[in-house]
Amino acid sequence: MTDVNNILQQSAAAFEEYKKVPAAERAAFLEAIAAEIEARREPLVTVAGQETNLPPARLNGELTRTTNQLKLFANLVREGSWVEAVIDSANPNSTPARPDIRKMLLPIGPVVVFGASNFPFAFSTAGGDTASVLAAGATVVIKGHPAHANTSLQVFEAMQAAIKKTNMPAYTVQHVAQPGNEIGKELVMHPLATGVGFTGSFAGGKALFDYANQRERPIPVFAEMSSINPVVFLPDTLEKNAAALAQTFGGSVTLGMGQFCTNPGLLIALRSPALDQFAQLLGDAIGQCAPQKMLHGGIQQAYVHNRGQLLTQQGVSVISEGAQAAELEAQPVLARVNAKDFLQNHILQEEVFGPSSLLVVCEDKEEMKAVLKSLRGQLTTTIAGTEADVKAHADLIELQTSLAGRVILNAPPTGVEVCAAMVHGGPFPATTDSRFTSVGSSAIKRWVRPVCFQGFFDGMLPPALQHANPLGIWRLVDGEFTKA
Amino acid sequence: MTDVNNILQQSAAAFEEYKKVPAAERAAFLEAIAAEIEARREPLVTVAGQETNLPPARLNGELTRTTNQLKLFANLVREGSWVEAVIDSANPNSTPARPDIRKMLLPIGPVVVFGASNFPFAFSTAGGDTASVLAAGATVVIKGHPAHANTSLQVFEAMQAAIKKTNMPAYTVQHVAQPGNEIGKELVMHPLATGVGFTGSFAGGKALFDYANQRERPIPVFAEMSSINPVVFLPDTLEKNAAALAQTFGGSVTLGMGQFCTNPGLLIALRSPALDQFAQLLGDAIGQCAPQKMLHGGIQQAYVHNRGQLLTQQGVSVISEGAQAAELEAQPVLARVNAKDFLQNHILQEEVFGPSSLLVVCEDKEEMKAVLKSLRGQLTTTIAGTEADVKAHADLIELQTSLAGRVILNAPPTGVEVCAAMVHGGPFPATTDSRFTSVGSSAIKRWVRPVCFQGFFDGMLPPALQHANPLGIWRLVDGEFTKA
Repeated sequence: MTDVNNILQQSAAAFEEYKKVPAAERAAFLEAIAAEIEARREPLVTVAGQETNLPPARLNGELTRTTNQLKLFANLVREGSWVEAVIDSANPNSTPARPDIRKMLLPIGPVVVFGASNFPFAFSTAGGDTASVLAAGATVVIKGHPAHANTSLQVFEAMQAAIKKTNMPAYTVQHVAQPGNEIGKELVMHPLATGVGFTGSFAGGKALFDYANQRERPIPVFAEMSSINPVVFLPDTLEKNAAALAQTFGGSVTLGMGQFCTNPGLLIALRSPALDQFAQLLGDAIGQCAPQKMLHGGIQQAYVHNRGQLLTQQGVSVISEGAQAAELEAQPVLARVNAKDFLQNHILQEEVFGPSSLLVVCEDKEEMKAVLKSLRGQLTTTIAGTEADVKAHADLIELQTSLAGRVILNAPPTGVEVCAAMVHGGPFPATTDSRFTSVGSSAIKRWVRPVCFQGFFDGMLPPALQHANPLGIWRLVDGEFTKA
Repeated sequence: MTDVNNILQQSAAAFEEYKKVPAAERAAFLEAIAAEIEARREPLVTVAGQETNLPPARLNGELTRTTNQLKLFANLVREGSWVEAVIDSANPNSTPARPDIRKMLLPIGPVVVFGASNFPFAFSTAGGDTASVLAAGATVVIKGHPAHANTSLQVFEAMQAAIKKTNMPAYTVQHVAQPGNEIGKELVMHPLATGVGFTGSFAGGKALFDYANQRERPIPVFAEMSSINPVVFLPDTLEKNAAALAQTFGGSVTLGMGQFCTNPGLLIALRSPALDQFAQLLGDAIGQCAPQKMLHGGIQQAYVHNRGQLLTQQGVSVISEGAQAAELEAQPVLARVNAKDFLQNHILQEEVFGPSSLLVVCEDKEEMKAVLKSLRGQLTTTIAGTEADVKAHADLIELQTSLAGRVILNAPPTGVEVCAAMVHGGPFPATTDSRFTSVGSSAIKRWVRPVCFQGFFDGMLPPALQHANPLGIWRLVDGEFTKA
C-alpha cells in the first residue's frame, strides 16, 4: 500500500534542499539522468517494446528524444537566463523615493507528474514534465503509467542512480507504482503537492484538474488532453500537389497507428474535382498502411468503439479503410462528411485516438469559416496551401490562429520539435491552461512563480539578482536586456 | 436588466477588431484614457470622496497612480518586447530536418474585471487589471463596484471618450453597473468570457474562481484576495531602532485606516526588553492615529466584527487602541499574543481588514520558525533587521521567501511600486495563481497565451516575428537576445 502522506512529506523535505542546489549541479544531475538512461538503452527498449507494442526503431528514437530533452533543460539551467531576472534600480529622487526592486522565478514545490501511455519514455517517467520540474528546482512524484509499469520502474531506477552519482537529495524524485485512479486523486489532493503535470485523456486530465481546484488550497494543473488537429487544404495546392499531400498527410494519420496527440483527425476542404482526386489518393495511402498492434487492449477497444461511433453518424461515409485488423491491431480509416452534417453534430468533433481521420467537405469559404468557428481548442492547426492560397485565405488562417497553440504551414502536425519557440498547448480542451506549453524549454514556466525582493542588501540576494551578475545571465535592468 | 449575453457577444466581436490594432495605436488609446481621466480630475475626486470617504489628497494621489499605470502600459506596448518573441531557425541538416518555429504572446479574448472597493481609481474601473487587459490587446467587461458606483460610471465615460477620440472598436470596453453577486456569476460563466481579474475579499475571489472552473470550458481567474503580510522584527534592530520602526510600521498599520491588501496585520518578534519598549512605542503610534471614516458601512461593520473576534481569542491582549470611533470610523488596535497560543488558533491568521495588527511574541528562534511555517500564502513578507540581524537569520528569511510574492527589507509593505520587477501576487490564498502578478508590467501576462507559427512564409507572420524585425523589439533568436 502506497503511503502518499509519507511520499509527499519526503518530497517537501527534499525540496527544501534541492531548491538550493546551484544551477551547474542541477544541470549535471539532468545530464546524469540522460546518461543513466542511455546506459540502459537496450533493456529499456526491450521492456518498453514488450509493454507497448511499439517497434524498436520508434522506441530507440523516443529514448534519444528523452535524453535530448534532459540535455536541453540541462543547458537551459546552466545558461541560467530562464529565471527572468528583472531589476528596477532605486531612485531616491522620485516622489515617493523608489526602492530597489528585483524579481526572479523560483520553484513552487513538489509536483505530481502523470505520464502518457503513448510515449513510454518522452512523455512518461523521465519525460518532458519531469525534466522541466527538475530543471525548475522543484521535486517530483511520478505516478507510473500502468500500461508500461516495468519500463517506468526501470527508468526510475536510472534516475535513482543519477541521484546517487550526483549527490542529490534522495527523495528529489519519487515513483508510485500502485495503479488506479484513487491513488492519483490522493496524490493531487495531498496538501503538500504544489502542482500537477498530466498528458493523456480528457477524462483523466479533467478529473485531476477538478480535484486540484477542490482542494482547500487549489494548485495549478497543466493537463494536455484532447485535440483533433484540423488541417485546412486550400484549393491551389490541391490542384498542384495532391499526390505529395496525400503521401505526407496519409503518413501523418497512420504514423505510430495514429497514437499521437497531434494526429490530424479532421481535414477541411472545398468541394472540387481536385479534392475528390486528393481524397482518393489520401484514402489509398491510409488504406495501404501496414497494420500494427496498438499500445494496449484498452486503447484498441476504445478505438474500435469511437471509430464505430464516428462511422455511424448521420452523413458520414467511408472513403477508404485498411485491412481487417488482427488482435490488438487498428483498422485505419478515412471518412468524409459534408460541412452541414458536421456543423450539426458535436460527436464528430470527438477525438478518435488512432489511425482515423474525417474529411469535412465545404460548399464555400463561408462554410469553411463556420466549421473552423465551431471547433473547440486545439494543440495544432495546419494550413496546406501555396503562396497564392495563403494570400487569398488570410481570414481562415486568422481563425486557425485563435484555435490552437501551434499553427503549421505545409507540414504534418505530428512531430513536435523540442525547442525554445515550441508551443505544445492550446485553449481548452487541448489543455487546462492555454498560457503554458508542455514541450520545449518554456515548459519550465509551469513550475515556478515570480518573487520580488525589495531593498535587500546585495549579499542577501540570490546570485541571479546580485549587482555584479555573477551568473552572467541576461537580465532586464531598468528596461534594457543586458548581461552587464 | 443587464443583457450579459449581448455584452459578451459585443465584447467578442470587438476583440476580433481590437486585437489587430497596431501597437502604436493601442498605446495611444491607453494614453488617451489617461488624458480623459486627468481632464476629469476634479469631478472624479469629488464623487469618489463622497462615495468612499477617502480624503482628497489620497484620491488625487491615487488618480495620478492610475494615469501613470495607463502610461506605463502604453510604453510597454509601444516598446513591444513584452510579446516574448522567440525564433528558432530552420536547420535542414538536422535529422529530421528542423522547421522554422517562431512564437509570441497573443491576447486570449474578452476579460471580466471586478474592481476593488478600497482603490476606486487604481484597482477599479480603469485600474491595473483593465489597463493590462487593454495593453494585451484583449477587450474588457468591467463590473462596476457598487461602493463607488458613480465614480465607476464617470471613469467609464472617460474611457468611452478615449475610445471615440482614438477610433477604437466601440465595445472594446464595456461597463456593467447592476449590483449583486448574481450578475458577476453570469459574466464569469458566460461561454465567451476568456479570463477574469478580481481584487477583493477571499469569499468573493474564491467564488469567482470556483465558477470559472465549473464552466464547460474553464477559464483562468487571477483573484487577489487575502493577506496579513507578516513582519519579522529581528533583535539587533529592535535594540537600535525601536523609535523609528514604531513610527514607520505604526504609520503603515493605520495608513488609509488600514484598508490596504498589504496592511501589516501580523508582527513577529522574540521576547525581550527591547521588544517591550518597541511594542509600547508602536502602540502609541497606532493609538494616536487620527480617526477617519472607513470606505463604507459594510467594511466598517466587518472590521468591528473581525476586530472583536480577534480580541476575544485565547491569550490575546490589547497593547493599545485608538479613540472610541464615531459613526463609520474604525478604532485602531495593536494586540499581542504568545506564539504558543497563535500556533493553536487558526482564527488569528484571518485578515482583519482595517487598522489592526497582532504582535506574536516568540520564546526563541525555533518558535519564530514555527510561526512562519504555520502561515498561509501572503502577498508580502517583511524583515526588519540590521545587516548583523540578517546574517544571523538567513533561515528565517528563506522561510519568508517561500511564503510570499514580495519580500521586503526594512520598509513597510504598504506602497506597491508599479514597475517591471514588482510582484503583487503570492501563494493561495493571497491569490488564486502564484505564477502571476496584478501590479507592474508583468500583469499583462495574465491575458495572453503563446502561439507558435511553424514554417510560415515571412509575409504571413505577425510583424513581431518577421525576419527583418520591423518593430525593432528584443527577441530570443536561436538562444540569444537581440534586436537584430
